[in-house]
Amino acid sequence: MTNLTQHDIDKRLEEIVSAAWAHNMQHFPAVTVSEVSKVLEYVGKQAVTSSRGGKRLRALLLHETAHTFAENTRDVIFTQEHERAIIDLAVAIEIFQTAALIHDDIIDDADTRRGKPSAHRALETHMSNNHQGSGLALMLGDLLATLSIRTAHTSSDIFSQSSTIFQTFLDMHDQVELGQIMDVSMESLDLDHCDKLEESITATYINKTASYTTVAPLEIGLLASESLQGIESAHSVALSAGQKLGIAFQIHDDLIDLISNPEQTGKPVGGDIREGKRTYILAQALKLANSTQRDYLIHSYLDNEIRTQSQIDHIRDIFISSGAIEASITAVDELWNSAAQEILALCMACDISPEMTQNYLHTCQRFVA
Amino acid sequence: MTNLTQHDIDKRLEEIVSAAWAHNMQHFPAVTVSEVSKVLEYVGKQAVTSSRGGKRLRALLLHETAHTFAENTRDVIFTQEHERAIIDLAVAIEIFQTAALIHDDIIDDADTRRGKPSAHRALETHMSNNHQGSGLALMLGDLLATLSIRTAHTSSDIFSQSSTIFQTFLDMHDQVELGQIMDVSMESLDLDHCDKLEESITATYINKTASYTTVAPLEIGLLASESLQGIESAHSVALSAGQKLGIAFQIHDDLIDLISNPEQTGKPVGGDIREGKRTYILAQALKLANSTQRDYLIHSYLDNEIRTQSQIDHIRDIFISSGAIEASITAVDELWNSAAQEILALCMACDISPEMTQNYLHTCQRFVA
Repeated sequence: MTNLTQHDIDKRLEEIVSAAWAHNMQHFPAVTVSEVSKVLEYVGKQAVTSSRGGKRLRALLLHETAHTFAENTRDVIFTQEHERAIIDLAVAIEIFQTAALIHDDIIDDADTRRGKPSAHRALETHMSNNHQGSGLALMLGDLLATLSIRTAHTSSDIFSQSSTIFQTFLDMHDQVELGQIMDVSMESLDLDHCDKLEESITATYINKTASYTTVAPLEIGLLASESLQGIESAHSVALSAGQKLGIAFQIHDDLIDLISNPEQTGKPVGGDIREGKRTYILAQALKLANSTQRDYLIHSYLDNEIRTQSQIDHIRDIFISSGAIEASITAVDELWNSAAQEILALCMACDISPEMTQNYLHTCQRFVA
Repeated sequence: MTNLTQHDIDKRLEEIVSAAWAHNMQHFPAVTVSEVSKVLEYVGKQAVTSSRGGKRLRALLLHETAHTFAENTRDVIFTQEHERAIIDLAVAIEIFQTAALIHDDIIDDADTRRGKPSAHRALETHMSNNHQGSGLALMLGDLLATLSIRTAHTSSDIFSQSSTIFQTFLDMHDQVELGQIMDVSMESLDLDHCDKLEESITATYINKTASYTTVAPLEIGLLASESLQGIESAHSVALSAGQKLGIAFQIHDDLIDLISNPEQTGKPVGGDIREGKRTYILAQALKLANSTQRDYLIHSYLDNEIRTQSQIDHIRDIFISSGAIEASITAVDELWNSAAQEILALCMACDISPEMTQNYLHTCQRFVA
């Protein structure tokens, strides 16, 4: 296992975001008028604040993948420049995530993110109305999305498959945005047919979550390892195992929303129910519940209003008593096991040592731990 | 003058946008659930609709710049591939504009754009609430922003200065977004000091408008002409003349909002006053008006509420009687003359023939015609 830590990623991420902001402030016409420069300063500070607090699982997966699979050719040793470029590719994904979360919070009108106010909520406190806060956050998301692309472009340059790495990064952008569109469209989805719901949820999770959480880190890590030209199955494994692991991660995340300590997650328990989110757990509950429970669920999710605390508690009880929570935990386990088997087979095909394989599986498993 | 028309740009733009959407629909996991695929289809159609209706001045300026300055070395003849790449670079700027306008309309909560419903208004008609329309439009803007970068990246590849062209394109993205932030921050700007207002407005116009309207088309056109390595002043001229022409364009556009036919512009007369926009004309009115008029203006722009039709009419009268409209027309003329002189000097330094120079100036002048 490499020695790279969450803290190393945090540090480099903050370096890149701060440098980009400073560059913009220096190179584009600014104003001395204090009202305007103050707002620019707030947005610049928010860029750093919004970037903080992630677990960096995606970045660490990309980095670990590149190192693990580079070893298999025995003669690939990363230069310092390559190592720096791999870290920056990993950071680019984290920057993209920050951009996507800022836009996601505007769409969901979410108050908090990672235990702090969401970007638009934080920015609106400086402005005369809430709409301005959303406007500033929308632009901050745009700036960070461009910065993620800029970072991926610069850092992919050194690799022999630079163009494929960059295209993979752009595809990831598109896919997450399509997943968001699917997510919004699911809000009005009829709950009478639970298999339709399950199909839509799975496709949304693949696009909106797995794409940038697991598939792109695996794909880009493999491409950056520069050692898989001969192993044709590598990329199909990245896609297949990455999708399974990514869906498992999202269901696991949905479960945390229901059964965890709000102080650890930074979000209130049952937030997804409150907002009427169409989740895998809900789909299971609709499938497994008795008819009284099912009617209650369908009725509760019908309108776009926010559900009350007593509704949340009742729905949560149905999720438990119907066996939906248990079924979702089982699904996470099964998806993880299937993903792990594919990853294991790839490691064997690539002659990765048992010890490295073990370490690599451990990195992957953190998405469902 | 080249024979490229607005129609040619329209055609290629629609080709690229449609192909990108079709690619996404084919390559990323979709759903057969009709509620979700219908929404994806609406967003895809809106991508095309929102792309239509521009005058393509920016694209034509980029293309004409590349051709005009390529001629000066006498031995540069664009291959068909180069010509295609120049058109695609030009189209990339138009795609970026569409993305920026979609986000701009969300920020301003604008109902119309180019005589049609704005993207979020059009999309909300398919959804159960307005907020979902904005969410879908936000994502459509993100997708088109990424597509503009993808198009610029692919098409810059063929040029010797490909990396500089691509960086210029990314810088343009950043600059427009910073300009938008300045624009939002100006909404709360104190109107008691009209020189502060004028300074903020000029800086905002440079970042938000001139950057992508004139500076980037000039810069990228010059870089794509592949013939200016020896002429060091070229890029400083592009910046200086581009900024002047871009500010002139924006003031001219503000004037059209006040004195034109709504059927031609697709927007109601006085929309900027209605929304309380801080414009160059307003800054001139505050400078030139008598104290009664000035007090009325300051009072009317104080709150964030929308101004009534009788207020709009009164403010418009003040703009006329104070001489603010006249001063703004004069400013457009002066900025244009100064930009034209710099462009003329560059054409002479580059040995551009008098006829081509004349044609080129004509292309530039369309921004203020």
